[in-house]
Amino acid sequence: MDNDDLRRGKPTNHKVFGESTAVLAGDALLSLAFEYIACKANNVSPDRLVRVFAELSSAIGSKGLVAGQLVDIESEGKVVSLKELEFIHVHKTAKLLEACVVCGVIIGGGNDNDNEKVRIYARFIGLLFQVVDDILDVTKSSMELGKTAGKDLVSNKATYPKVMGIDEAKNFAYHLMNQAVQQLACFDTAKAAPLYHLAYSIANRQN
Amino acid sequence: MDNDDLRRGKPTNHKVFGESTAVLAGDALLSLAFEYIACKANNVSPDRLVRVFAELSSAIGSKGLVAGQLVDIESEGKVVSLKELEFIHVHKTAKLLEACVVCGVIIGGGNDNDNEKVRIYARFIGLLFQVVDDILDVTKSSMELGKTAGKDLVSNKATYPKVMGIDEAKNFAYHLMNQAVQQLACFDTAKAAPLYHLAYSIANRQN
Repeated sequence: MDNDDLRRGKPTNHKVFGESTAVLAGDALLSLAFEYIACKANNVSPDRLVRVFAELSSAIGSKGLVAGQLVDIESEGKVVSLKELEFIHVHKTAKLLEACVVCGVIIGGGNDNDNEKVRIYARFIGLLFQVVDDILDVTKSSMELGKTAGKDLVSNKATYPKVMGIDEAKNFAYHLMNQAVQQLACFDTAKAAPLYHLAYSIANRQN
Repeated sequence: MDNDDLRRGKPTNHKVFGESTAVLAGDALLSLAFEYIACKANNVSPDRLVRVFAELSSAIGSKGLVAGQLVDIESEGKVVSLKELEFIHVHKTAKLLEACVVCGVIIGGGNDNDNEKVRIYARFIGLLFQVVDDILDVTKSSMELGKTAGKDLVSNKATYPKVMGIDEAKNFAYHLMNQAVQQLACFDTAKAAPLYHLAYSIANRQN
């Protein structure tokens, strides 16, 4: 892929292989995720694995990723409130991040309180990721981003800078990052270091 | 749904709710299947549940249902050999039936030999289901079938009667049913009764 490809955005599987094949690839990858956990997890007790399956499947399904994607599609071209925008991002992005960190805690043998803390942490960084994405879209050039800048404006997509203004969006991002890292206070700092690092790097990413 | 609806065939989710929503509904149902097993299974040991997840996800994925559907789509309008036709049906239909009966054996505490026997049984009845479907399409009226008869001929779809002739297709169906029930010989007859019944009713169904 050369720089021109980057600027234009790489064509999706739907374009390259056709609608049906792309949909089937999605189904195959979804079941592969579960197959991988069932067959490849080493030294994890089966009762923890069953809880991992419950967490992951719930994050994907009609109360998770799918709900967010559906509301996102249905709100295309419409005026979207801040509440609806948050619903979309919490479900489309944060739910899967939640599942990742909560599954880590389950596998590592954490308790319900640990689960809840990292779940809230993930919800904040998931939302943070989207707010920063929206800010970069209006403040960076296509070359800096490695993808087409300003396309949210062109596509009439609801974004945080559009709904609350660019300065308020930046303040909101800062608030989300602080809220996220506050959830980690109860953990051993050295062990939680990767989670701190993840929050900071999402907040400060430039592309 | 009235008789007219039956004759025309009920419209698919794609038609009623649109492509995107129907695809998302599929993803939601796929993850719901796993969520249901993880959260609702009572009195099943976690190690057996993990084996159920492995079996089910493998049946759906790129070596199962998805593979069959992909080859089916790609062979539309082409001349299809008997080998390709069998590949499609074994993967599109029999794999999921296999998962159903094998999961029953896993949950019930069967051994590897039991697993293998019911797996082969399911492959035969899965193929049988399709062969009978093809035969009914050319031998029954739409009213008898409860769906449009003769549509395989119209759509140029590969079928067993088309590839091997109607008499040979009927012989093949009889052969598949016998092969299926032979796999059950090692089980307690009373306990295996539902599986015998299933094979006979698939072989003798009229719509």
